[in-house]
Amino acid sequence: MQQRGRFITLEGGEGVGKSTNLEWVAQWLTAHGVEVVRTREPGGTPRAEAIRELLLSAEFEEPLDVDAELLLMFAARAQHLAQRIRPALERGAWVLCDRFTDATFAYQGGGRGIEPERIAQLEHFVQRGLEPDLTLLLDMPVEAAQQRLQGRLTASGHARDRFEQEHRAFFEAVRQAYLARAEAAPRRVAVIDADAPLATVQARLAECLESRVGAWL
Amino acid sequence: MQQRGRFITLEGGEGVGKSTNLEWVAQWLTAHGVEVVRTREPGGTPRAEAIRELLLSAEFEEPLDVDAELLLMFAARAQHLAQRIRPALERGAWVLCDRFTDATFAYQGGGRGIEPERIAQLEHFVQRGLEPDLTLLLDMPVEAAQQRLQGRLTASGHARDRFEQEHRAFFEAVRQAYLARAEAAPRRVAVIDADAPLATVQARLAECLESRVGAWL
Repeated sequence: MQQRGRFITLEGGEGVGKSTNLEWVAQWLTAHGVEVVRTREPGGTPRAEAIRELLLSAEFEEPLDVDAELLLMFAARAQHLAQRIRPALERGAWVLCDRFTDATFAYQGGGRGIEPERIAQLEHFVQRGLEPDLTLLLDMPVEAAQQRLQGRLTASGHARDRFEQEHRAFFEAVRQAYLARAEAAPRRVAVIDADAPLATVQARLAECLESRVGAWL
Repeated sequence: MQQRGRFITLEGGEGVGKSTNLEWVAQWLTAHGVEVVRTREPGGTPRAEAIRELLLSAEFEEPLDVDAELLLMFAARAQHLAQRIRPALERGAWVLCDRFTDATFAYQGGGRGIEPERIAQLEHFVQRGLEPDLTLLLDMPVEAAQQRLQGRLTASGHARDRFEQEHRAFFEAVRQAYLARAEAAPRRVAVIDADAPLATVQARLAECLESRVGAWL
């Protein structure tokens, strides 16, 4: 029987360097002989990406109800799990995902104020016990991350999406909820200090991957 | 304090005459001095209608996971409740809705085979105890309803949506699940035999409304 692949997630708020470091982690895994499926949430399949557009769109005048936002997140996740994540893991590929359920606890829980117990109900409903084997949480102070995000948006000319438009207190709550998730599950979640030059952050990632992933290779 | 409005839903499978009779019920209520907000599910607000498009679209090649479909239904419902249904009821208007949670038990439960207990979990999560004061279930044999639906589609030139494309056994399961819901909640759900000329069906609706709604006026 084919051994099930490993499920690794990368987490963190806006501006912490997730995209750059996701690419780097994918290359590290590939260099170690692993077939990597790179994906992201919300999204990862055509239908789930369409749900993502509804979630991020700043075009509607109508506010999005917090429960509706939470249910859309989990609808996209159910689709992604069924169509992409579970099939990849079952054939032995590793899945490297940009954000997963920790982000829901951080943004909809910490940020929007939904009780963690309500989020956990939907987590169990949709995931039926599946959770990441390893989560890399890129962490840095909100002030520094916001400066990086602003620089990136100015350079690219992109408008802020619904989440990027939120304010300082929202991102502070997101960060604290992420750190609380890490503290509650230290065997699964590794906190990487991302407030450093890229080479330093990647040296920290390499050290973490060698100690946590080495035994699985 | 303003008295809370009443929440009335109209239910039934494809082709039973829901749209025509919804209009008729709205006129009956208006003639009895009630302010009626007519709406529908999935949908009823701009964001919920956008979710409806994702649910009904037959454009994606990718199949829609049954849990994702169920979560999208309840995401649209949470939005509809927060932005339209609850505010209308609170200011004293009556809400007349084309389909609600009974349809989820019928289509996603009966039709797709999701256990009713799983649907009930999301019902409690989203509705927090709110349910219709009265549900009018238009019922007729599937064969006859399918003939009506086909006639309507041929006349209008519309293509079938994802649900209308389903087969006989699906609609039979939907009908049986609707009837089971009615049997389990006879004080809330009135079954109207819709396999008759329109004038007869509307005489049955009038009789039902007089006996069930009269005391609320």
